[in-house]
Amino acid sequence: MSRSIHPAGAPAYADLEARFQRLYRLEHLGAIAGWDQAANMPPKGNEARAAAMAELETLMHAQRTDPALRDLLARAEDEPLSDDQRANLREMRRDWLAANALPSALVERRALATARCEHAWRTQRPANDWAGFVENFRPVVQVAREEAMHLAEATGLAPYDALLDRFEPGMTGAEVERVFGDLRAWLPGLIRQVRERQQAEPPVIRPVGPFPLAQQKAISLAVMRRLDFDFEGGRLDESTHPFSGGVPEDVRLTTRYRLDDLMQSLMGTVHETGHARYEQNLPREWLGQPLARARSYGLHESQSLSFEMQLGAHPGFVAQLVPLLVEHFGAQPAFEAENLARMVTRVEPGLIRVDADEVTYPAHVILRFEIERALIEGVIDIDDIPALWDEKMMLWLGRDTRGDFRDGPMQDVHWPSGLFGYFPCYTLGAMYAAQWFATMRRQMPDLDARIAAGDLAPVFDWLHDHVWRQGARWTTPELTRRASGETLNPAHFRAHLERRYLG
Amino acid sequence: MSRSIHPAGAPAYADLEARFQRLYRLEHLGAIAGWDQAANMPPKGNEARAAAMAELETLMHAQRTDPALRDLLARAEDEPLSDDQRANLREMRRDWLAANALPSALVERRALATARCEHAWRTQRPANDWAGFVENFRPVVQVAREEAMHLAEATGLAPYDALLDRFEPGMTGAEVERVFGDLRAWLPGLIRQVRERQQAEPPVIRPVGPFPLAQQKAISLAVMRRLDFDFEGGRLDESTHPFSGGVPEDVRLTTRYRLDDLMQSLMGTVHETGHARYEQNLPREWLGQPLARARSYGLHESQSLSFEMQLGAHPGFVAQLVPLLVEHFGAQPAFEAENLARMVTRVEPGLIRVDADEVTYPAHVILRFEIERALIEGVIDIDDIPALWDEKMMLWLGRDTRGDFRDGPMQDVHWPSGLFGYFPCYTLGAMYAAQWFATMRRQMPDLDARIAAGDLAPVFDWLHDHVWRQGARWTTPELTRRASGETLNPAHFRAHLERRYLG
Repeated sequence: MSRSIHPAGAPAYADLEARFQRLYRLEHLGAIAGWDQAANMPPKGNEARAAAMAELETLMHAQRTDPALRDLLARAEDEPLSDDQRANLREMRRDWLAANALPSALVERRALATARCEHAWRTQRPANDWAGFVENFRPVVQVAREEAMHLAEATGLAPYDALLDRFEPGMTGAEVERVFGDLRAWLPGLIRQVRERQQAEPPVIRPVGPFPLAQQKAISLAVMRRLDFDFEGGRLDESTHPFSGGVPEDVRLTTRYRLDDLMQSLMGTVHETGHARYEQNLPREWLGQPLARARSYGLHESQSLSFEMQLGAHPGFVAQLVPLLVEHFGAQPAFEAENLARMVTRVEPGLIRVDADEVTYPAHVILRFEIERALIEGVIDIDDIPALWDEKMMLWLGRDTRGDFRDGPMQDVHWPSGLFGYFPCYTLGAMYAAQWFATMRRQMPDLDARIAAGDLAPVFDWLHDHVWRQGARWTTPELTRRASGETLNPAHFRAHLERRYLG
Repeated sequence: MSRSIHPAGAPAYADLEARFQRLYRLEHLGAIAGWDQAANMPPKGNEARAAAMAELETLMHAQRTDPALRDLLARAEDEPLSDDQRANLREMRRDWLAANALPSALVERRALATARCEHAWRTQRPANDWAGFVENFRPVVQVAREEAMHLAEATGLAPYDALLDRFEPGMTGAEVERVFGDLRAWLPGLIRQVRERQQAEPPVIRPVGPFPLAQQKAISLAVMRRLDFDFEGGRLDESTHPFSGGVPEDVRLTTRYRLDDLMQSLMGTVHETGHARYEQNLPREWLGQPLARARSYGLHESQSLSFEMQLGAHPGFVAQLVPLLVEHFGAQPAFEAENLARMVTRVEPGLIRVDADEVTYPAHVILRFEIERALIEGVIDIDDIPALWDEKMMLWLGRDTRGDFRDGPMQDVHWPSGLFGYFPCYTLGAMYAAQWFATMRRQMPDLDARIAAGDLAPVFDWLHDHVWRQGARWTTPELTRRASGETLNPAHFRAHLERRYLG
């Protein structure tokens, strides 16, 4: 395992590196066990698996809260370190803070409250049982507010910002407000314009199935190869909820095939391959250290969306799927390149975030951001959520959701699991992705022609240099500035949507 | 997780139970990571996986060598305990002894010596490079001799017995000598008789392939279902070297399919299913404690051989495979029941242990037992092995192996890995299996008719009651006596072979 060479005068730093290397090895076991749980495990293995993974968590938590760390981190600050080592030390401190900022009694209460709420949610959601849900959700919100206070105290951030910072370091509610505020000004009008335009067009022709799973799998693998996924360092399998798991040395993607819908799994695979290539190309020489981790959830999403939306829904890329589809399923009218391109860019305001297209998706995120921020700050209470939800859905997407909790505020697992501050990452990711491609087009004016010619290397090389191999070396704003010459600028996302949907 | 209720006056014992429960959870992660390594892992994951598994080993070793254990074990002896708890405590002490009997410097030297020897062996064996092998093998033998001395001191056993005891608790070299001595008297003659008889018969008709892998897999799964493998608590996958892994709650079998040979993977699957059902039926209420472990490697092998040899090569069982084979591959002369039965009982003295039939297999084991025992006791040295090997192969199987190290003393991974004392378990397992079936036939005179009618429940019920659900509650001789009314008696194995091959 390659390791950084630290100056001889850095014994505290060297000790820290060794400790994080050990943690990395244990994380490996958890990642593989977690992937296996989703992709392979038979039902009777569940109880023992949960106990084993909890035991590992306990062990790792004990290592991350070892009292010796505080002193080591302090001493390492005064040691002679390279720039990379100093960045690594900064990330070590972030990790330490996340593990040590909360009293263990609160950690336990959080585990209990979220486990109970999430478990009940799995039956309460289909039953549309908001009243029952609220009972379990109340302690989750209570714990999250306390958690936000503790994290705020430890970081010096505002409470909601401290939650957000766990997923998107350096991002604040005010900054999200700034970039989302920009969206508020033009997105509703854009959605309306796109809808009008698409409704005037002839209807999209849907592919006619069934689509045998073995053929779908062959297409997924072929597309992953085209996207330069390294099969010597990863696999594609199946699970109920697709994800990108495993470890950087061995990335485990999953997808789910539906007999009646081939595009869903295909685009899902393209999305997960974006996550996977980020992981597969994190800085090798630093693997095992916090510096080699992906920068943030928002940046991770910027990679999956660079693949799925910027590239996957690109008419030049879509045209290249045609021979693959015809080869495996025979020719049919739906497989005409122009029809396919219109299919993957179809805009339909709907109730469900995960089914949303790239134009309406930000509306789902903004409404959640506004509600969860107010909820954490105590400006609103749980009972205010349904009315706010309905009001915002009506405003943004013109959908009445009164009385529909199932496909309203109960639709996502994030809140029942206590993951407040996560939702903004989805739309931040879409914005970063647009900013990356705007930069690429500026630097490589023939980019679209090359994509259309099947030459994706310029895209991958750019992402590799500016995002993947940077790991967590820079804060997100610094990485963004180095990559694109400016910090996050929502104008690129707007330009992307206008160009693709109104151009 | 269900746990034993210990009397309130047993705090040391309760502490030990909690510690072993935690170890069990960590073992779970190692078992799944190990299975994944063999069944799924792409090549670039190997280095990180090895580091992660070594880290887990280190952690578990630290827990098993915690100095507090010695006192806890001593105090628990004086606490009021149930019989099961006392048996569990005995097994805890065995585990503790295995982890604590060796100085850590020796453990490190062993790890280095065996890793180096095994690694070199992988290329030296195909190159038939005995001289090169000896150089790496010498430190392995040296360490094994020291290890035997330390274990002998800790257990009060003779040195070789102390090695054997790791795999077959309670078994001694003298006892192996007794039962193998019996074989020596009649096996060579039996082999000769069987060979003469089979050579006088018309030749066996070989199945004509290719046999598509998907069909082979379907047959393997069907046979596993017939053998009552619980698919809610386990899976069948593929790996280069078939094994039964995972954990009792989630058993992972692997097999390997060859396009040109369907019986090899089918019989391999039957064999591994025997291991699997033992694991799946260990005493549930004790899972997590040493009492719930399989008793020994010999008893484990007695289960795989009960399935593969006693049952799998039983003409009544073989006849039931016919419709399955015809369904998947169409009718062909080789699939006649009588021909199939002769195929799986074909006796051919060969050079390779793992390819041997059940009649000549013990010869391979006896020769290894004689050589390794003398080697550990210092009666012979490494340089004496080739001549002894050749002499014994000539005596037992009439095969000249002079100059053939590759398919002679270098053929197995056990010695390069330092696993001295393991080989006897294979033939002890075959003998136990014969003893189980002799007992069943005594208790259920219609057993063979029921097997021929496809009713395997009597076999499974008997094994369940007498072996599987006993776990490690009894020592092997005690379990054997309780199950069959006597301790290990090689006469049953002889009777089995004479009945099947000369009857």
